Amino acid sequence: MEGRKVTGWAARDSSGVLSPYSYHLRKIGSEDVLFKVLYCGVDHTDLHQIRNEIHSTTYPLVPGHEVVGKVVEVGSEVKKFGVGDIVGVGCIVGSCGECICCKTNKEQYCAKMVFTYNAIYSDGSFTQGGFSSAMVVHQNYVVNIPDKLSPEQAAPLLCAGVTAYSPLKQFINSEKPIKAGILGLGGVGHLGVIIAKAMGHHVTVISSSNKKREEALTDLGADCFLVSSNSNEMEKSRNSLDYILDTVPVTHQLQDCLNLLGVEGKIFVVGAAPEPLQFIASDLILAKKTISGSFIGSIQETQEILDFWVEKDLKTMIEVVKMDYVNKAFERMEKNDVRYRFVLDVAGSNLE
Amino acid sequence: MEGRKVTGWAARDSSGVLSPYSYHLRKIGSEDVLFKVLYCGVDHTDLHQIRNEIHSTTYPLVPGHEVVGKVVEVGSEVKKFGVGDIVGVGCIVGSCGECICCKTNKEQYCAKMVFTYNAIYSDGSFTQGGFSSAMVVHQNYVVNIPDKLSPEQAAPLLCAGVTAYSPLKQFINSEKPIKAGILGLGGVGHLGVIIAKAMGHHVTVISSSNKKREEALTDLGADCFLVSSNSNEMEKSRNSLDYILDTVPVTHQLQDCLNLLGVEGKIFVVGAAPEPLQFIASDLILAKKTISGSFIGSIQETQEILDFWVEKDLKTMIEVVKMDYVNKAFERMEKNDVRYRFVLDVAGSNLE
Repeated sequence: MEGRKVTGWAARDSSGVLSPYSYHLRKIGSEDVLFKVLYCGVDHTDLHQIRNEIHSTTYPLVPGHEVVGKVVEVGSEVKKFGVGDIVGVGCIVGSCGECICCKTNKEQYCAKMVFTYNAIYSDGSFTQGGFSSAMVVHQNYVVNIPDKLSPEQAAPLLCAGVTAYSPLKQFINSEKPIKAGILGLGGVGHLGVIIAKAMGHHVTVISSSNKKREEALTDLGADCFLVSSNSNEMEKSRNSLDYILDTVPVTHQLQDCLNLLGVEGKIFVVGAAPEPLQFIASDLILAKKTISGSFIGSIQETQEILDFWVEKDLKTMIEVVKMDYVNKAFERMEKNDVRYRFVLDVAGSNLE
Repeated sequence: MEGRKVTGWAARDSSGVLSPYSYHLRKIGSEDVLFKVLYCGVDHTDLHQIRNEIHSTTYPLVPGHEVVGKVVEVGSEVKKFGVGDIVGVGCIVGSCGECICCKTNKEQYCAKMVFTYNAIYSDGSFTQGGFSSAMVVHQNYVVNIPDKLSPEQAAPLLCAGVTAYSPLKQFINSEKPIKAGILGLGGVGHLGVIIAKAMGHHVTVISSSNKKREEALTDLGADCFLVSSNSNEMEKSRNSLDYILDTVPVTHQLQDCLNLLGVEGKIFVVGAAPEPLQFIASDLILAKKTISGSFIGSIQETQEILDFWVEKDLKTMIEVVKMDYVNKAFERMEKNDVRYRFVLDVAGSNLE
């Protein structure tokens, strides 16, 4: 059954160009939260999806999965949220609720997990994202934005932030000093540096060129900067790191990262390079190294990173733009011309 | 300073043919244990080393790193062992003793770790292995063979056994039922099946052909048998396993294993394939899968697997042969014609 009529910005074809689009939200169920969208982060996945680069896009598509909004109405069974609350929604809006993943706060790995947009919801409706005037989301997939966190600051934490936080949180109370590596300095990487520093780690940024050296060391407070093509520098840092957060979504030399790890060192792969990655077995074996994948984070971890941000008084580095700039924003993002995340001022764009 | 004169069987060149060879052990230091070798297991690494296939062999080379012996003499500071004790030595006979690996019972990962043979010991002497009438080894790298375990049964546990045990021990007290996969059914693989079964896991053997189906299911008690080239069978078992012990030391499709793992599933790579292994990042990411290396085990874990073998009343499957059969044994091992481990009856071969 159709609910409220809203206006989003949708891609209509694989050109990926967004333009205004009217559609209906689903009717508010007893456990649903209706909120007006305030801000929404712009992610690389959005770009892939609007252009159908993953060959799974249904048009028209309203992207956006770093959504911050203000609650307008709640279903009869909703106890956690009330009208006027500032809330957030990340990459997923549904899961089965019954499997081992759902029952152990890992619902992002549930086989029936529902993406925030370009997916079929449990009622058969098509999900649309946060580049929209409003959304309806089941309360289990909604988080609370802390009072002390501004909504535009919160937006990138809902996907990029929790993606970096989820694998790193295991080191949060480490007794020994931790030497961290962050490979790639985009949306996820820059938050990785900030999170790792806030956890007290010694942070080395590993990048393909020298371009971001200054900003990594000065703006983000990294301790070291390595250029992966500089074999001299890389050799000197051999066997020195406890972990590397690998955020690079294109093919790259995983072996270079493996060499940087010490005994029991871990690589967390969060960037989905389409081509296979390679490693030499003996390099893994002889120092008990590990390569792990990690996918966003759970709803609980999403709440944790928001609270962590407030507790540590951290700041995301964002560029806030209006909705009519979104096509340009995607263009610039593609050229890596953003430090480090576009956030759309959706409410300020008067979509309706 | 030279100690006792002994007789081993050594390779003299890259033909890898072994023949009797006399040499001197080092003099017994205050923390050293001198023992007469009773039995010694025959490992694939021995074959690579005697033929210089790893390009690091110094000839003459006496191989053997699954050594069980009877103590003949101990240094003045040796408290743990006495004359007449049955003891074991695995792959390593030295490490720095001071690094974080050494101080946390992971001495096999110490940067100064000394291999049992074909290595330079801390005093500058060259290490020779267990295909010999006797050995001198520092007490820290000697384990106690339990009374209830026959020495020939113990031998394969000192390398192959602990290699399987070390990564699997994390599941020993698992609250949830564990579904295990063992890839490859050689020396390490067959012990992997026995260990995993003894831990109460549901065990699937994954093999490149149907040849070992019967023995896996009947002799070793595995619960399932999968042929990796049978895509139908493999597809049916998709996402079903908690871990796979990957013992295959030649290039293979890691991706096939990854597909068998469920959420948070782990592959433990213990076979050092020389060519790079590959995986698709998204397969790791979307189900939080992990690929880890693991190298033999610590001295403490070596003791643990020996005690575990007694506690669970387990049996290694070995073929005991005399030393003059060793060249033939290597030939047969190369053709995979052994179920599952040759053990040399060294004492019974009257080397001296």
